[in-house]
Amino acid sequence: MEKAIAEAEKGRGSVSPNPLVGALVVKNNKVISKGHHSAYGKSHAEVEALKSINPRLKADLYVTLEPCAHYGKTPPCLNLILKYKNFAKIIIGCKDPNPQVKGKSIRGLRKAGFQVKTSVLSSRIKKQNEAYFYHLEKKRPFVTLKAAITLDGKIATRDGESKWITSSTSRKKAHRLRAENDGIMVGIGTVLADDPLLIPRNTKGRKFKPPARIIIDPKLKIPLDSKIIKTAKAYPTIIACSNLVGKLKKENLEKLSVKIISIKEKNRDGHFSMDELMKELARRNIAGLLIEGGSKLNSEVWQSKLVNKVIFFVAPKLFGGQELPVIGGQGISSIAGATELKINKVERLDKDIYIEAYVSK
Amino acid sequence: MEKAIAEAEKGRGSVSPNPLVGALVVKNNKVISKGHHSAYGKSHAEVEALKSINPRLKADLYVTLEPCAHYGKTPPCLNLILKYKNFAKIIIGCKDPNPQVKGKSIRGLRKAGFQVKTSVLSSRIKKQNEAYFYHLEKKRPFVTLKAAITLDGKIATRDGESKWITSSTSRKKAHRLRAENDGIMVGIGTVLADDPLLIPRNTKGRKFKPPARIIIDPKLKIPLDSKIIKTAKAYPTIIACSNLVGKLKKENLEKLSVKIISIKEKNRDGHFSMDELMKELARRNIAGLLIEGGSKLNSEVWQSKLVNKVIFFVAPKLFGGQELPVIGGQGISSIAGATELKINKVERLDKDIYIEAYVSK
Repeated sequence: MEKAIAEAEKGRGSVSPNPLVGALVVKNNKVISKGHHSAYGKSHAEVEALKSINPRLKADLYVTLEPCAHYGKTPPCLNLILKYKNFAKIIIGCKDPNPQVKGKSIRGLRKAGFQVKTSVLSSRIKKQNEAYFYHLEKKRPFVTLKAAITLDGKIATRDGESKWITSSTSRKKAHRLRAENDGIMVGIGTVLADDPLLIPRNTKGRKFKPPARIIIDPKLKIPLDSKIIKTAKAYPTIIACSNLVGKLKKENLEKLSVKIISIKEKNRDGHFSMDELMKELARRNIAGLLIEGGSKLNSEVWQSKLVNKVIFFVAPKLFGGQELPVIGGQGISSIAGATELKINKVERLDKDIYIEAYVSK
Repeated sequence: MEKAIAEAEKGRGSVSPNPLVGALVVKNNKVISKGHHSAYGKSHAEVEALKSINPRLKADLYVTLEPCAHYGKTPPCLNLILKYKNFAKIIIGCKDPNPQVKGKSIRGLRKAGFQVKTSVLSSRIKKQNEAYFYHLEKKRPFVTLKAAITLDGKIATRDGESKWITSSTSRKKAHRLRAENDGIMVGIGTVLADDPLLIPRNTKGRKFKPPARIIIDPKLKIPLDSKIIKTAKAYPTIIACSNLVGKLKKENLEKLSVKIISIKEKNRDGHFSMDELMKELARRNIAGLLIEGGSKLNSEVWQSKLVNKVIFFVAPKLFGGQELPVIGGQGISSIAGATELKINKVERLDKDIYIEAYVSK
């Protein structure tokens, strides 16, 4: 199953909103064929692993996630596996939480006489597919708050200089992180200040599904000559604005291939419910969402308790002062009120430190 | 030499302003005796290692630091070693930078016919004695800035709550750090807010030389009923104040066993030169100084470029907001102006992260 998980990993960045899946055909303790789901809409791992295998062969099948039982972009893998009548054992890492599957295939295989083993390294497989599981179960994106900060928690100097706080090694890893998510979110402040392109670069020639660029821009202040708008035809672009913004502005942007999500304002102050936006993004198949905000957006998603995971690239520098903290806003008043994180990974990355933590929920 | 370094380590927290030293007598590749310098004023490592050894024995002597050649609290180790005429080799890890030694013993041993080998793991021995070397060479304390912070660089919530940000495991390690230094420095703000005792606790029954508590208190605002003043007879206490403070206040404190260092004010604004204070502390044999400041003191020593080492205990929490950053003050304006640190150690410590970094000088 270890090997099947590694096989599944090859699809990272291309399969969402589908899960990463790996499959192996094993005969006499030897892997004789393997396959993974390589891209959304492409054939599933089981199909890839079985395509060169004779249906009369005696062997075992390992698959990280329960095979599908329904017609989606491709026909059900269950039907395919049922043809391999001489297979002795089907070992399934983890049940698929998708309501169209959810144990159906396991029952189908057992009914057909296969010996089925389930729950093998299932917690690792769930972690491998954390965004997929979360998105399916909670109908919200799995949100990662990512920032490049100093040891004293600053995202920029007091004059707003932030290019570059961390080493090029860290920045490469940050680009990979973009590619592994379905959406990258920034606030309009970042667009106005930095005019970013927000596409993954330095991904070593691997093909990724380009993540949607999602701008929080309540009053649609985004300049039509910003890099994001100018590249909206080539890269998916979503702007979230207030329902009170005029139709014309929205239509102009839509003509330029921008998708507009308008959300009801709370108090006519430009603020809208981030929670509503998250639900809408989930409906649009944003399973993994990366927040690359400034102090303001970071504090908004953090305080709305929408963050699942925090990734900090920490540079060995101290900027000092009060301005430009990674999480802005008011700050909490008592330690008891602080949300606890659970450190998952701490690594040295060139001169920097890479920290990955989960929000305990 | 590895073993001699480990032997030397046993004296940590008790020997300063002397260095940590370990010595081994080795015969036929076997350690037959070992010793370390255990406390300031007590016998040196060589004396301890040789006290049970017959002067006619044939063996080798390993010692981490060059033996002393002068009469200090104890007679010169050089004279003692010269008695062991049958010793074949004397292996010395590192030369002693103390001007009263500085190669004298090495020359003395060679002149007497011993085969002397030097510079064995010397950079490790220098690091083991980093405060000793720095203090001797620069006539300043080796300054460690220590803080318990959140992942976003806060030392307290916006209401000033700081007890406790980190886990008890981190706090224990912080107490050991106190014990390993010769002085602990805080600002008067911390004394007024927290009324701390500032003595090392939880040091597992090991005996440590109590570090001096050093308060930066320009106007001598410290309350006579503060814990620090009430315990000044039992634990060394130094208060640094402005030269403009009245005599009476100083005398009152001196009667309570407090040592006063008065430093010339720069602009009659209460500020004095931290640099002057550091020189005076070095004269008073503070070789290793631990800063446990609030935002203000931390920013003052950091911006004065007096910090050699930074130790952060990082709790997996995010407080948010602008208030109570670990380094206060103005903050720097450009990244190019940021002092680069070099990460030396990153470890997980219970729920927290322990980070140790050196200031590149």
